[in-house]
Amino acid sequence: MINIAILGFGVVGSGTAEVLTANQKFIEKRCGCEYNIKYILDLRDFPDSPFADKVVHDFNIILNDPEITIVAEMMGGSHPAYDFSIACLRAGKHVVTSNKEVVSTFGTELCKTAAENGVRYLFEASVGGGIPIIRPIINDLASNNINQISGILNGTTNYILTKMRDCGESFDTALKDAQRLGYAEANPSADVDGIDAARKIVILAALASGKLIDPKTIHTEGITAISLADTKLAALLGFAIKLIGYTKVEDNKLIAYVAPHMVPLSNPLSGINDVFNGVLVKADMVGEVMFYGPGAGKLPTASAVVADIIDIMSNKTDDTKTINWTDAKATDIADFNSYSSKRVFVFNGKSLVAGIKTVSDNGFSATLTDEMTEKEVNDIKAKLGTSLLAVYRTL
Amino acid sequence: MINIAILGFGVVGSGTAEVLTANQKFIEKRCGCEYNIKYILDLRDFPDSPFADKVVHDFNIILNDPEITIVAEMMGGSHPAYDFSIACLRAGKHVVTSNKEVVSTFGTELCKTAAENGVRYLFEASVGGGIPIIRPIINDLASNNINQISGILNGTTNYILTKMRDCGESFDTALKDAQRLGYAEANPSADVDGIDAARKIVILAALASGKLIDPKTIHTEGITAISLADTKLAALLGFAIKLIGYTKVEDNKLIAYVAPHMVPLSNPLSGINDVFNGVLVKADMVGEVMFYGPGAGKLPTASAVVADIIDIMSNKTDDTKTINWTDAKATDIADFNSYSSKRVFVFNGKSLVAGIKTVSDNGFSATLTDEMTEKEVNDIKAKLGTSLLAVYRTL
Repeated sequence: MINIAILGFGVVGSGTAEVLTANQKFIEKRCGCEYNIKYILDLRDFPDSPFADKVVHDFNIILNDPEITIVAEMMGGSHPAYDFSIACLRAGKHVVTSNKEVVSTFGTELCKTAAENGVRYLFEASVGGGIPIIRPIINDLASNNINQISGILNGTTNYILTKMRDCGESFDTALKDAQRLGYAEANPSADVDGIDAARKIVILAALASGKLIDPKTIHTEGITAISLADTKLAALLGFAIKLIGYTKVEDNKLIAYVAPHMVPLSNPLSGINDVFNGVLVKADMVGEVMFYGPGAGKLPTASAVVADIIDIMSNKTDDTKTINWTDAKATDIADFNSYSSKRVFVFNGKSLVAGIKTVSDNGFSATLTDEMTEKEVNDIKAKLGTSLLAVYRTL
Repeated sequence: MINIAILGFGVVGSGTAEVLTANQKFIEKRCGCEYNIKYILDLRDFPDSPFADKVVHDFNIILNDPEITIVAEMMGGSHPAYDFSIACLRAGKHVVTSNKEVVSTFGTELCKTAAENGVRYLFEASVGGGIPIIRPIINDLASNNINQISGILNGTTNYILTKMRDCGESFDTALKDAQRLGYAEANPSADVDGIDAARKIVILAALASGKLIDPKTIHTEGITAISLADTKLAALLGFAIKLIGYTKVEDNKLIAYVAPHMVPLSNPLSGINDVFNGVLVKADMVGEVMFYGPGAGKLPTASAVVADIIDIMSNKTDDTKTINWTDAKATDIADFNSYSSKRVFVFNGKSLVAGIKTVSDNGFSATLTDEMTEKEVNDIKAKLGTSLLAVYRTL
């Protein structure tokens, strides 16, 4: 009998309890062992929940119970989630999590601590919700050097951008829609400012390179400045505007950032709409593969958490070998100003730059240019007047 | 030192040798062991190949060499591929394969033989080429009941259908294109008649249900009857015509078949073009996830083969538990005639059926109808005259 504790009984925590219970019989058959949810840690009580009798308020009950071998941390936030996680690993308990904030900030230390204590720290649910991404990159692309990953990593912003394009809603209206539907928080900053996507892209960048960058240090742009005019001009140019987390490994240098991109309609990421996520991986042997699915939600995210628990219960102890990160040093990171891509310049009025293609609509215009570095863009920007409204990277 | 033998030095076999060699250093680091390609079995010699000295012509050299612990079967065809595979498993050697014909026909026996001999029979590359599909379904969706899988499983036919739609080429012209580019064989029957896709969908159906259906017994339609008029009318109705392998598990009954479908543009499979493949999985906890990438090709397919080899070298011996199929009995299989979906009827001239939407173009017309069973379609067909050109299922 394997005893499991769940830390945090919010959306994902309660979903994890639900998945573990709903499909318990065949999960046990698959793993060749029985399991039991012994504790659920939360500050609150849940008298009406079928799990009411499992709820405890003192973390030490879990930490000090030698019967608990797997801890599912679903608390969110850095503290005390990090502190509880590292304490469990040091006590020889496996930890699985959906907490991208903790993984992106403390992942190196947590993986190392797990390895030192002969247990595992798994975080499939921290990127892409229910979509299998982390394990497939580690296991299925194991014969590949990962060269580049680009992803739609945040469902809330993708929902807003889809509404703006397909329904002609302004950013503010689409955001209110998202809030009404429960896709966006009352304080939407972590989503709309790109902070959530930044945490996820540094986790993917670490899978590609072995180096974990502090997510607070990467270039992070959100979607608050995107206008309806931009979305219309994008469509006329053959693009969809998407908030993209991007990472590339080249000559042992790593770049990672988050920004709105014009994604060509030929790129499969352009067709990922609403709250769905997609991650496109380029690798040296396989070429290009994409993983698509629900990037958030109670049961989808719990599905990924439980996949990690099943992985541990099936004794696949060897994966720990492959999660061996170091914190990225300044010398590991490529200069963002030297990063080059084709750009789209958007103007109020006539386009003031030359390029591959120019379109105009309703008094606005946009020009697709050749590749430019960030520095070149900034130099041109300084010369253009206030009619320049925005400059987009392209994929 | 782990010694590997490759059976068959064609496209995938030589790609496997190339991947194992190109990325040998970091694969060895990842696995924590060294390896060596000791033999390559082929009827031919390859004097100009860097692997020339590994080539042997007698299978018994490999079978009887106790140093060989992993055999990669890339021969294609049922015999002697099946015979060699089962002999290796009985001799206590792991076998990995890209051979969908063998897996779909003899998979139950081969997996059972592997388990009885304490070794593994892995076949990630048999479906979707380089796309991670089989291991993610087994490991990452392990907490889910798989309800339905629909996939674009054959790159050749998808290339032809993309050319017909986007370039207005006839089936014959597009097929010749595909042959010139090396995407289609001189005898294209296995691709264009849906036989290849049928083998792949029964493998996916077995992953979903545990029951392996003989691929020769499932309803299999190819793409040879699809006309340019059909592709144009599909676009007007908001669909793309795709050759779909489909399987569904409901009330413990399994259905699996291959047929051209009208795929709505809102379905992510509709955007998968050219030689790419995509597999859309619906499962009870995660909802809908899709895997996309190169469904064939030398290095992509080899990437999946080598992922299986890495899986074995990393001693992930526990996966064998999860591949435990039985051959499907007649009572396991749902009646194809009772299977229901919305249909599109295509006519030369005016539409003769009522439905949700009718479009017409250049003297042809098409009507999208409500859901109908196969039996209902056949009853209606019998009443309509020769102006009825085709009836499509929809996804």
